[in-house]
Amino acid sequence: MNYPNNLKKTYQNPLTYKNRGMDLENELNESNSYYLEINRALIYKKPTPIGVADVSYSPKGKVINKGFFKEPSTLDYNGLYRGKYIEYEAKVTENRTSFPLANIHKHQIEHVKKVLEHQGIVFLIIKINDIVYLLKGNDFIDFLKTNKRKSIPYAFIKEKGYMIKYSYNPILNYLDIVDQIYFEEEV
Amino acid sequence: MNYPNNLKKTYQNPLTYKNRGMDLENELNESNSYYLEINRALIYKKPTPIGVADVSYSPKGKVINKGFFKEPSTLDYNGLYRGKYIEYEAKVTENRTSFPLANIHKHQIEHVKKVLEHQGIVFLIIKINDIVYLLKGNDFIDFLKTNKRKSIPYAFIKEKGYMIKYSYNPILNYLDIVDQIYFEEEV
Repeated sequence: MNYPNNLKKTYQNPLTYKNRGMDLENELNESNSYYLEINRALIYKKPTPIGVADVSYSPKGKVINKGFFKEPSTLDYNGLYRGKYIEYEAKVTENRTSFPLANIHKHQIEHVKKVLEHQGIVFLIIKINDIVYLLKGNDFIDFLKTNKRKSIPYAFIKEKGYMIKYSYNPILNYLDIVDQIYFEEEV
Repeated sequence: MNYPNNLKKTYQNPLTYKNRGMDLENELNESNSYYLEINRALIYKKPTPIGVADVSYSPKGKVINKGFFKEPSTLDYNGLYRGKYIEYEAKVTENRTSFPLANIHKHQIEHVKKVLEHQGIVFLIIKINDIVYLLKGNDFIDFLKTNKRKSIPYAFIKEKGYMIKYSYNPILNYLDIVDQIYFEEEV
């Protein structure tokens, strides 16, 4: 795992300190396990697609001797929440001023548009400057339509995104934000 | 690929003949690609979960030198159709009189119950005696509740299931059946 060089700057924040050893993916996996446990939502990380080039058979089952990671055409997480389809991608950037769009594949952008069109809930979870934001799929697509930039400025994320606070359990209670913005509820 | 020994018996049926070289998974993958192309539904096969035990780095990217297949806790296919969450598992049996329940893991059965509870569309697609059936998740769970058998009799599948016919494109037009049974439409 790589820690940014500027980590010491945030070392005094107890929450940041507590979570610095756990990356965003683990934080979301743990939050989703918690949601599953309390039966609030069924959301899973999709396995990374693997191309298997060589397998052999052992007494314990098939073993992959050569494989490679393939580029995903959908987003990392999907599932079912309050009777609705939900899908999102989670990304961390060490960049302090903007979120580089190179983090999201072209196929994934097309997929976000399609999920919106088919009335699913779709968003990005972006960790930037040690803060986690939920950026709605339509705000993301709107940005792409009106900008030729290769990154989303932090100011845009702060303005349009919703901050997801760290808590004890779930670590990232992003479904409270989803309730608020997609089910129009006060939390 | 393994062909059943009794294949010659069905050799004269042109549709069976046409499709015998393609297994159910490929038939569904092609049907889903077609649905995606005509923008009818967004349904993907989840990658098989892989445990990666050893990787190395090549100029072309990360290479897996040792990996193994993990047991899935959800179903094979999921996605979004007409604003609803949809999920299913596809299985072929060479058994002519029943569908062995060993084909479905315990975690997957629990998952089917949860998807029903959270108001998703969930079902099994079972190919038995060269016929493809859609068996609704609640009929499957009802069977398990009222039976101690280790397999579902073919008679039950014929009675409760919905036959999915082979066609040119999509090869298996199962969404017409989904329309009929989940959206109460005449097709």
